[in-house]
Amino acid sequence: MDIFKAHLDKFITVSDDEFTSIISFFQILETEKKENIMLEGEICKFKYFVLEGCLRKFFVNEKGVEQTTEFAIENWWLADTFAYERQEKSNFNIQSVERSRLLIIDLHSQELLLEKHPIMERYFRMIYQRAYAAAEKRIRYIYEMTKEEYYVHFSTLYPWFIQRIPQYLIASFLGFTPEYLSEIRAKLRS
Amino acid sequence: MDIFKAHLDKFITVSDDEFTSIISFFQILETEKKENIMLEGEICKFKYFVLEGCLRKFFVNEKGVEQTTEFAIENWWLADTFAYERQEKSNFNIQSVERSRLLIIDLHSQELLLEKHPIMERYFRMIYQRAYAAAEKRIRYIYEMTKEEYYVHFSTLYPWFIQRIPQYLIASFLGFTPEYLSEIRAKLRS
Repeated sequence: MDIFKAHLDKFITVSDDEFTSIISFFQILETEKKENIMLEGEICKFKYFVLEGCLRKFFVNEKGVEQTTEFAIENWWLADTFAYERQEKSNFNIQSVERSRLLIIDLHSQELLLEKHPIMERYFRMIYQRAYAAAEKRIRYIYEMTKEEYYVHFSTLYPWFIQRIPQYLIASFLGFTPEYLSEIRAKLRS
Repeated sequence: MDIFKAHLDKFITVSDDEFTSIISFFQILETEKKENIMLEGEICKFKYFVLEGCLRKFFVNEKGVEQTTEFAIENWWLADTFAYERQEKSNFNIQSVERSRLLIIDLHSQELLLEKHPIMERYFRMIYQRAYAAAEKRIRYIYEMTKEEYYVHFSTLYPWFIQRIPQYLIASFLGFTPEYLSEIRAKLRS
């Protein structure tokens, strides 16, 4: 749990006793590589915090191709936020990219947590504020850059990320075929 | 201020006295149609809540074309969230689409507000959570739909919005030329 404590410390101040109480509202989930955590058509019961490993969120498009819209590595949250807030069926899938260790919380436990520890409102406000700011940036990139430019931008900013994630998933995130991604990578190397 | 009180009531419970104190941390800004509120290269000092009117956020792309990325009408917030949080120079512009009446708050006043009224952490957490959920949906639409499909989707869900906003700004939001948007509209009518 030290990972989550260190993460919280970046946003709010909680004593060790408070932290012990806070953490009791969460559960631990351990997943295998490629394990499906949430399937399209299921209620989005939980949101997921990555202690160790990597998750992705995707949907299956009209052509039957998996389109990844988000990744989450250590210290990131992942959920279908819209479906989680309303406890509705999701039209996304969530899957482990790597063997992972997750902290999960359901909406009811979250409400109890926020009631007992209002300081966590501040924490989640900051988390959503940052997530929203990142989404605003991403929408701008989508308008501004071709997918090739976005890949170059992305791999320049996050080379360690590109190393870590299987190439076919990077392709699925960018909306490329794996073959097309190989071509771009070859072009960039030359 | 009744508009903002009614808006807050949807998320949190505050007494009239609390509300009087809360509102004292904000300022009112009245703007003319097409007035620039924030320019690219300026620090994003404020975030803006629309009491009456309409704002848009845009950037100027490489070709010198204004690309609108967001609109805000009554009861919506608008800012360059990333630049606001860090008090950095923005690379967006914010402009009044209509003559508007805004509630604005700077980061320092916001911190004082949150210190004095921690219930506002809950309010802003919910606001950012919804904004993030909407951005997740929008990113999926961008992956899933052609711009023509997005226009049809958008104008079916929000016909009153399409009526209200000048056509050249709808085109600027969709990344169309105004001429192309006219063509699509003609095709849809026939």
